[in-house]
Amino acid sequence: MAAVEPLNRQFRLASRPVGLPRASDWTLEQAPPPRPAAGEVLVRVQYISLDPAMRGWMNEGRSYIQPVAIGDVMRALGAGEVIASESPDLAVGEYVTGLFGVQEYAVAHPAAVGRADISVAPLPVYLSALGMPGMTAYFGLLDIGKPTAGETVVVSGAAGAVGSLVGQIAKLKGARAVGIAGGPEKCSYIVQELGFDAAIDYKAQDVPAGLAEHCPEGVDVYFDNVGGPILDAALARLARRARVVICGAISQYNALDAVQGPANYLSLLVNHASMTGFVVSDYGDRLAEGLAEMAGWLAAGRISSREDIVEGIEAFPEALLRLFSGENNGKLELHVGD
Amino acid sequence: MAAVEPLNRQFRLASRPVGLPRASDWTLEQAPPPRPAAGEVLVRVQYISLDPAMRGWMNEGRSYIQPVAIGDVMRALGAGEVIASESPDLAVGEYVTGLFGVQEYAVAHPAAVGRADISVAPLPVYLSALGMPGMTAYFGLLDIGKPTAGETVVVSGAAGAVGSLVGQIAKLKGARAVGIAGGPEKCSYIVQELGFDAAIDYKAQDVPAGLAEHCPEGVDVYFDNVGGPILDAALARLARRARVVICGAISQYNALDAVQGPANYLSLLVNHASMTGFVVSDYGDRLAEGLAEMAGWLAAGRISSREDIVEGIEAFPEALLRLFSGENNGKLELHVGD
Repeated sequence: MAAVEPLNRQFRLASRPVGLPRASDWTLEQAPPPRPAAGEVLVRVQYISLDPAMRGWMNEGRSYIQPVAIGDVMRALGAGEVIASESPDLAVGEYVTGLFGVQEYAVAHPAAVGRADISVAPLPVYLSALGMPGMTAYFGLLDIGKPTAGETVVVSGAAGAVGSLVGQIAKLKGARAVGIAGGPEKCSYIVQELGFDAAIDYKAQDVPAGLAEHCPEGVDVYFDNVGGPILDAALARLARRARVVICGAISQYNALDAVQGPANYLSLLVNHASMTGFVVSDYGDRLAEGLAEMAGWLAAGRISSREDIVEGIEAFPEALLRLFSGENNGKLELHVGD
Repeated sequence: MAAVEPLNRQFRLASRPVGLPRASDWTLEQAPPPRPAAGEVLVRVQYISLDPAMRGWMNEGRSYIQPVAIGDVMRALGAGEVIASESPDLAVGEYVTGLFGVQEYAVAHPAAVGRADISVAPLPVYLSALGMPGMTAYFGLLDIGKPTAGETVVVSGAAGAVGSLVGQIAKLKGARAVGIAGGPEKCSYIVQELGFDAAIDYKAQDVPAGLAEHCPEGVDVYFDNVGGPILDAALARLARRARVVICGAISQYNALDAVQGPANYLSLLVNHASMTGFVVSDYGDRLAEGLAEMAGWLAAGRISSREDIVEGIEAFPEALLRLFSGENNGKLELHVGD
């Protein structure tokens, strides 16, 4: 009797969301797993990365990357194990990361995946500190923000996947780290466990007053993940020659009206300050450098990576919303197989 | 019989304007000319510079410089001749520029004035290409915008004191220059007389469409003098690694509501672009370099400086408004004496 072939469950984009994605924007389908062509491998996806950028990929119109087409498997980073290989470059049993999509099995070309050494760190960390969020924090802060010892770095989304690393790297570089996060638990976490100098709870405190209290000399580097009124509050508090790093704008991704532009942008003029945006793929040719340094910090216990793992691929539509409600604690991932 | 001593007419700030300054925001007073103390000189002001920045100086609250106090002579740059000297550093008959205010006579300390050599250029040029607007264009474009040969530079307020120089310097550096200005005369002027590659008439044309037409490869440097919808249009058209120079925001200076922030700022993220502000005083220690280079270009006929000179100090309140209606053609100055 032949073994029953497993089915590949996958979420496909059914319609472009207006505002927050709804269950009806997705279809959950099952199909036989794809077969690797010559030169490709088949990956059993174990963890799927849930990231704010996914919201942008669902919109029509080209941004830095093509939108996901209606009917296509939703684009997502993932990590898993090679279970079949038609390539001499990757063997069965190796762990890899890549744009595998929201599904349980994916074919990939070895040139398009990263290797994950699970003797260095558990697989979920390769979607976190040793993955896209880690490299986003590393290059955004160090290449654009360029904090120096004694400067004050403020980061929003400070308990999130990127923000928690930004503050820790800032501390490693001798800067002060002030985090803006929602709720007492997250604020306590970044100060008590991650070593931030101060936290501002934007849900309970006045952010401008918090910045005035914790940044008496002004903000030298502001790393923005949220946009909206918090970006404006930081702009109003810039120090001379401050650097604002535009990494994301999660407060605006589901906006039904136009994006809220930063009304305080003329603070750049007054302070000879700059505001620079980036996406991590801009640093594709320097990933090895960033990953090596981050792995060293993790191994030395100088950086802490936290993942918030939700069980089951069927949880995808609801889990994704936790990014926008701020319910996740650390890097949000789906665990979809072993 | 003693000579009748002239009176010093001066405009003082009577109230802080709401929106556009009104006649009632000023008082025109007359007083005996001040007397220079030891170490000072008395200047007969001949030209008074009218600049958009003056609107900001009338507001309460410290920006990069203290506001003008109610009752004080309105702050303004000016150019004139030393007519009495209590300083060995400046002789009667020398021409100088400085923050002389909206008045006919001013005392000044030699360390706080610039020298104007009227054998090099007429005195009004020292408030234009060889003054604040010239240095604003020079350092803003070259130190922040950093255009390279073949790149496309877009400037708003392109027929104005700063913008007209920005486009000309861009051309000198081998870049393409596209100007945004209001009305067919200004557009013709910057293309036919100043050598811009193209002009977009924001009063008659759709600016996004004009940018798409004239910047097919995107905007590498955008030098912004206006803010508002034109800034947003430029942001939407940025090339990879574009540099946006925030020099001013004249569309917002008289706003009764909050400043309109640039809704398209996330174009910075997508394009790895930067937006950097400055004021010319940031380059105080490099003025000699900028002035020497600009003087060389003027002498060689490679840069054209145009002044729009309004007669009489009594014209001040109305003349100032021409900056905001866009009626001036070139650097707006008041001629108040010889």
